[in-house]
Amino acid sequence: MGKLVIVGTVAFDAIETPFGKTDKILGGAATFIGLAASYFGVDAAAVSVVGGDFPQDYLDMLSNKNIDISGIEIVKEGKTFFWSGRYHNDMNSRDTLVTELNTLADFNPKVPKNYQDADVVMLGNLHPLVQASVLDQMTQKPKLVVLDTMNFWMDCAWDDLMNVIKRVDVITINDEEARQLTGEYSLVVAARKIHDMGPKYVVIKKGEHGALLFHKDDVFFAPALPLEEVFDPTGAGDTFAGGFTGYLAKTGDISFENMKNAVIYGSTLASFCVEKFGTERMQKLSNDEVQKRLMQFKELTQFEIELS
Amino acid sequence: MGKLVIVGTVAFDAIETPFGKTDKILGGAATFIGLAASYFGVDAAAVSVVGGDFPQDYLDMLSNKNIDISGIEIVKEGKTFFWSGRYHNDMNSRDTLVTELNTLADFNPKVPKNYQDADVVMLGNLHPLVQASVLDQMTQKPKLVVLDTMNFWMDCAWDDLMNVIKRVDVITINDEEARQLTGEYSLVVAARKIHDMGPKYVVIKKGEHGALLFHKDDVFFAPALPLEEVFDPTGAGDTFAGGFTGYLAKTGDISFENMKNAVIYGSTLASFCVEKFGTERMQKLSNDEVQKRLMQFKELTQFEIELS
Repeated sequence: MGKLVIVGTVAFDAIETPFGKTDKILGGAATFIGLAASYFGVDAAAVSVVGGDFPQDYLDMLSNKNIDISGIEIVKEGKTFFWSGRYHNDMNSRDTLVTELNTLADFNPKVPKNYQDADVVMLGNLHPLVQASVLDQMTQKPKLVVLDTMNFWMDCAWDDLMNVIKRVDVITINDEEARQLTGEYSLVVAARKIHDMGPKYVVIKKGEHGALLFHKDDVFFAPALPLEEVFDPTGAGDTFAGGFTGYLAKTGDISFENMKNAVIYGSTLASFCVEKFGTERMQKLSNDEVQKRLMQFKELTQFEIELS
Repeated sequence: MGKLVIVGTVAFDAIETPFGKTDKILGGAATFIGLAASYFGVDAAAVSVVGGDFPQDYLDMLSNKNIDISGIEIVKEGKTFFWSGRYHNDMNSRDTLVTELNTLADFNPKVPKNYQDADVVMLGNLHPLVQASVLDQMTQKPKLVVLDTMNFWMDCAWDDLMNVIKRVDVITINDEEARQLTGEYSLVVAARKIHDMGPKYVVIKKGEHGALLFHKDDVFFAPALPLEEVFDPTGAGDTFAGGFTGYLAKTGDISFENMKNAVIYGSTLASFCVEKFGTERMQKLSNDEVQKRLMQFKELTQFEIELS
């Protein structure tokens, strides 16, 4: 069983969708990644920071999911990172209403000693220098490093971003970000340019339109499961990343063929995440439910055609 | 070998894309559908109308592709339907610059006698009354009737559209049109409502985001092949429909399982169509090229996951 280090936010979210509205609930990239990865029973540690206002219940919940929380620093006198957003009617776009960095502003991640030899490192969306500092703390080269990022860092920390991108094996970004990162509209051409920046594997997330995995001239596509209703898209991308890295940490096989399965697991778990507000659905997820949905993914995509 | 009747426009198109500009070239739904269906060597007839200005060369080309043109009426004193459009930089949206209906304004389709017993009828996008008049001419109930339509007819011929939709087995429309037709954002819910209008099968085309096939509670998804460059999207939807119906006419098997393959063939042929202006690419398409691209589709979508 592989070890997985997850660095990212552990946060409060307040969410408005056409279906309803929440007060401050549990959110954050590391939270969603950790919950998804926990499905695979891997030995995962979350590296993050919260304030004294962060409920012990939330930490206990993560611990109960077998996520090591010794790397989540608690700044007693500080407040937890808070994000608030409102989704538009199509659920594909949103407005950020509030971003309070709070303790995240001075986040200095510390990887617990017994995870500095982890096999897989998942760098959630954070300042590229923070992501790099996690890699600096690893005592041996991880088998796989996966990085998530966003347009914000392209706008205001380009050089730092390029430096950390060089050091990772897989990058996960959305289609618009891939276009911004490369100046290319075609995702095929964009992926090739991103390969040249360092990552051997490029995952381009297209939300409700699925995800593409590129490796050299190979490409694999996983659709999003067509759902009757998307209730709250918050955390879907991080859940995808958690499913992806959790599966790879569990199997220890980073071949392209196995990475396809990791993409399918990521998409499968993300399809649950969006069914309820925040982490609600991910906290209560049975193996049967996941296996049943994997079967739906097979039916959705697999065909038997005879080539002549 | 099944017989296929195709009704639709045979037209002149003038196209502007970021890559270039054409004078009046061969276009039209029945043209693209026919060229795609001709790949399968089916016994297909195009039913359409053109003016005296329509070049004999174009008619000869269609004949040489084994498309029966006895149902293409030539109105000597009239002019051929002309459409001109300009694509935006993202190639996903376009402006119509010119629409001259010409002979199409009085189009009264006549299905050739020896095709009135066809197995498959493909109703290209036209006024719903014109589509219905083709069905009225069939001397026996076709094995499969497929209808394409667009938002324009929802706006200005709703009742006629509902009447013809009731009579078809498969409808192919794009995502926005499915939403307009049903007032539902979720494509899963939209497909269910369209089932209730009549069609047992619903194909929702999402352009570069692929296509969904719905039948009762079953759903199948085919991505668009990720391409380095989309040169001209004109005719891609009709080419998809031609591949879909051509394959079904050839195999004579209208089970859901076989319809999946028809969707894959449709997507495969459409991926060629967009590589050149107009019908250029579809006129020169070898079996080897198609089989190679089908293999790419398999690699793009097929995975081996063990369920526990």
